[in-house]
Amino acid sequence: MKKVFITGAGGFIGSNLTDRLLSEGVQVVGWDNFSSGQERFLDGALHHPSFELVRGDNLDEAGLTAAMAGCDTVFHFAANADVRFGLNHPRRDLEQNTVATFNVLEAMRWNGIKRIGFSSTGSVYGECQVIPTPEDAPFPIQTSLYAASKVAGEALIHSYCEGFGFEGYIFRFVSILGERYTHGHIFDFYKQLMEHPDYLKVLGDGSQRKSFLYIGDCLNAMLGVVRQGTAQQAKHGVETYNLGCDAFVQVNDSIAIICKTLGLMPRLEYAGGEKGWIGDNPFIYLDTQKIRGTGWETQQTIEQGIERTITWLRDNQWVYEARL
Amino acid sequence: MKKVFITGAGGFIGSNLTDRLLSEGVQVVGWDNFSSGQERFLDGALHHPSFELVRGDNLDEAGLTAAMAGCDTVFHFAANADVRFGLNHPRRDLEQNTVATFNVLEAMRWNGIKRIGFSSTGSVYGECQVIPTPEDAPFPIQTSLYAASKVAGEALIHSYCEGFGFEGYIFRFVSILGERYTHGHIFDFYKQLMEHPDYLKVLGDGSQRKSFLYIGDCLNAMLGVVRQGTAQQAKHGVETYNLGCDAFVQVNDSIAIICKTLGLMPRLEYAGGEKGWIGDNPFIYLDTQKIRGTGWETQQTIEQGIERTITWLRDNQWVYEARL
Repeated sequence: MKKVFITGAGGFIGSNLTDRLLSEGVQVVGWDNFSSGQERFLDGALHHPSFELVRGDNLDEAGLTAAMAGCDTVFHFAANADVRFGLNHPRRDLEQNTVATFNVLEAMRWNGIKRIGFSSTGSVYGECQVIPTPEDAPFPIQTSLYAASKVAGEALIHSYCEGFGFEGYIFRFVSILGERYTHGHIFDFYKQLMEHPDYLKVLGDGSQRKSFLYIGDCLNAMLGVVRQGTAQQAKHGVETYNLGCDAFVQVNDSIAIICKTLGLMPRLEYAGGEKGWIGDNPFIYLDTQKIRGTGWETQQTIEQGIERTITWLRDNQWVYEARL
Repeated sequence: MKKVFITGAGGFIGSNLTDRLLSEGVQVVGWDNFSSGQERFLDGALHHPSFELVRGDNLDEAGLTAAMAGCDTVFHFAANADVRFGLNHPRRDLEQNTVATFNVLEAMRWNGIKRIGFSSTGSVYGECQVIPTPEDAPFPIQTSLYAASKVAGEALIHSYCEGFGFEGYIFRFVSILGERYTHGHIFDFYKQLMEHPDYLKVLGDGSQRKSFLYIGDCLNAMLGVVRQGTAQQAKHGVETYNLGCDAFVQVNDSIAIICKTLGLMPRLEYAGGEKGWIGDNPFIYLDTQKIRGTGWETQQTIEQGIERTITWLRDNQWVYEARL
């Protein structure tokens, strides 16, 4: 990797990868429409001589194709990541995730770029009965428009690897935590506690089990396999990796860590029910043997990840304003 | 089912279902843009008082929504079914299959129609190592743009069943044979033999194993489960069925049946290799225990299906002109 194109470079994962690659001497072209990405996340990168920012939308295929010229690798992170309210605007996941991924692949094809890393999600397993869930779990039923759009993106990447000789790396994430984390229930809980430190409203019954991964560990995993070139040896030119850690916590546990970090003892008000919302998965816990088999291991525990996230949110409360 | 909307009503499966439903006293609204469908397939239906034909394209969401009004069930068959040349025009599968399926679902939502039958494909299993392949086979890698677009369609239907209370029936077909069959290798072989009865060019080495299902058996299976309402009891409101028969033949076997039916003995010229083309699956053989468990069974063997197909093609050579 000498020159990397990152879609969603202004987002949580995209901006962290941008900084990491720049620090390692790699050139980066960042692409973002800043619909949810934050320009402030790129403050450091914008002062770096090896970084170029191009504002654009993935539905603008011509602009995307032009911006990508000269790069050798694409990390495609830009997406509508609003899982919970997908049913309010079904076309958004189709366009911003499925069609956008198609446009990224076409732009790569026109530029002769073949290596792609893609942020998929553990949600593609739906309510899988095999837990921890391996990459070759039974063909799942999708329970959200978001996951459906990510499955579609994965399948498009497969077919470009098979048909056009692409080299694909699909990463099915659990929830990622850390600096610049800006959505999900930890974000929502902290927001509530800023507004009313004495009580906290919890969707579901708090028993939903979630696994988390710290952003630094996530970057190590992605860069590790892309640099090893594992997909080059794969039969169909594509490798899929679960990215998660070897543990999980209940929502109630995460609340306890947040409150401890902040020194608060709010009253907990549960909405009740097993699920937080329609399509919420009460338990995502991924089998990570495959990525561990490449030599990768986590450096941070879930507790450390939550602490770092809360500390960063406390120091960067502007993100709550920016997200309004 | 009192009034059924069929996309791709002018196609092979759509026109056969149209005739079947009309013969059973069901009203049918046929929708087709006739890009590959044949108006002559609807000659009978057009004389039936319970049939209405609406010409339109699935990318015209407003037209689709208007045409669907008053129906209680949708069978969505319209698709780009050109698997082999998908790499020549990747956007076609995205638009005509994935986006089209989204538009069908949205049109249903606006009309308050919740029951959908969908033609998917056994190709979604890619090069599955589990043979015969059951519906819950390991999460597959897609090897064609066509299959990728069908996986995307399946996932969209899942998420509408989960999120909007739809009742979904997904049918993963093997190759379907019979009257009005107009694409696939049997079609291509017969065309060659019309042009040069003394030799036949065969992609691959002829050892590719394929399973087939006769159109009448296919209709029985689809109508059977929709009428039983099996998806109403399913946890996520959707059931997926492999539709195939309990046997398979090699391409060489199908050639022998064709030649016997036609009384020809052509010289066979093999292109060689295990696969017919990039993305061709050397062996699709589906486990059909699930659909058999609903009481369905095949009435026709593969040999009978091929014979009926060849007989129909011989009597309807106009389809070769129409497809040019």
